[in-house]
Amino acid sequence: MAGKLYGLGIGPGDPELLTLKAVRLIKESDVVFVPGTDPKDTVAYQITVQAVPELEDKEIVGIAMPMTKNLELLEETHEKGANEAAEYLKDGKQCVFLTLGDPTVYSTYMYIHKKIQKLGYETEIVSGIPSFCAVAAKMGISLSEKAEELHVIPAVYQIEEGMELKGTKVFMKVGKRSGRLRELLKEKKADAVMIENCGMPGEKIFSKAEDFPDTAGYYSLVIAKEGE
Amino acid sequence: MAGKLYGLGIGPGDPELLTLKAVRLIKESDVVFVPGTDPKDTVAYQITVQAVPELEDKEIVGIAMPMTKNLELLEETHEKGANEAAEYLKDGKQCVFLTLGDPTVYSTYMYIHKKIQKLGYETEIVSGIPSFCAVAAKMGISLSEKAEELHVIPAVYQIEEGMELKGTKVFMKVGKRSGRLRELLKEKKADAVMIENCGMPGEKIFSKAEDFPDTAGYYSLVIAKEGE
Repeated sequence: MAGKLYGLGIGPGDPELLTLKAVRLIKESDVVFVPGTDPKDTVAYQITVQAVPELEDKEIVGIAMPMTKNLELLEETHEKGANEAAEYLKDGKQCVFLTLGDPTVYSTYMYIHKKIQKLGYETEIVSGIPSFCAVAAKMGISLSEKAEELHVIPAVYQIEEGMELKGTKVFMKVGKRSGRLRELLKEKKADAVMIENCGMPGEKIFSKAEDFPDTAGYYSLVIAKEGE
Repeated sequence: MAGKLYGLGIGPGDPELLTLKAVRLIKESDVVFVPGTDPKDTVAYQITVQAVPELEDKEIVGIAMPMTKNLELLEETHEKGANEAAEYLKDGKQCVFLTLGDPTVYSTYMYIHKKIQKLGYETEIVSGIPSFCAVAAKMGISLSEKAEELHVIPAVYQIEEGMELKGTKVFMKVGKRSGRLRELLKEKKADAVMIENCGMPGEKIFSKAEDFPDTAGYYSLVIAKEGE
């Protein structure tokens, strides 16, 4: 019988934010896929091994997931990754794929997931805590109350448009747009916070838009409340 | 020394979606608050006791949280709830408050949280899996990919406006707006799914907008992809 692939969300960084289901499935698995080429050096492995020490004795396989906007290269890499994973499933291995945050929110895992499904293997997604929930919790603020809308926006793309939306805005992967976002938020007089590397080493918190740096790291996220 | 209040997200219904942190804090707590008047009959208790059997032997206290749009009544009830909780904190008890989904996403817990903070007690929010992530996982679909935006909209209010937004839309607590949403989605030719009671007894899935009923239950949620 062929194996099954579980796409596991491991949450935003704090090992204690893994779910009971993720922990059980990792313990029961034969093979653990992690995004990256050097398996035990990946962020996903480093977080998870703290919650599930049994991970050390598992077969860990790195699946390359380059950060690129080159669509052809991406497609090629995902195809290769899916084929690598499929080899283990064909052999009847139970496999889990560790992914930061939640697998359904901006994760590259979903590309592998769809390809594995097309190849005819059974798959299941297991939710993880999305980074924006963890940031809101850390800052002690609501993402949404009563009739408020919540908008999650990849900051590399549409920040100007996003800023016009009503309700709470979450800008993901702020990086180089940090300075521009700071200026827009100041104009709007909107309350906003930024966190870099939430729950991970090197965590930094900016609790006012005025303090946002010109450029932030890759794992940076802004929560902005409705301004004027 | 005064106690501390932890607002714990217990996730969308599947007991295995509790986090390790929620489980630990429940076990370590002296008092467990649940939203409702009949503590052991509440949905929050019923879900959590399956993951943490130790809950049976804890002091469980119901905090009334009526569903009403009467702002005065709400304010009065939250004030009363916070004062009840504060009595235990004053006595130095470690307290957890169980809340469905994530505490920062449309939870009534946050009203209690703010009031407890104002009274000078230490508080901490612990993230839970939001219902929309669990629904996307169950249906095997992405909430957002690449440059896509994700919008979370309380369906009791602005569905017409919400429908015009780009990217993926999540309509929460669809209830009586189900029929209207069905017509709007058909006009837009947008792919959409609805789930009632995700992961709970009485779960129902509608995998096409055409199939949405005129009226759905309280715990109903729609994920709609961008249409025409």
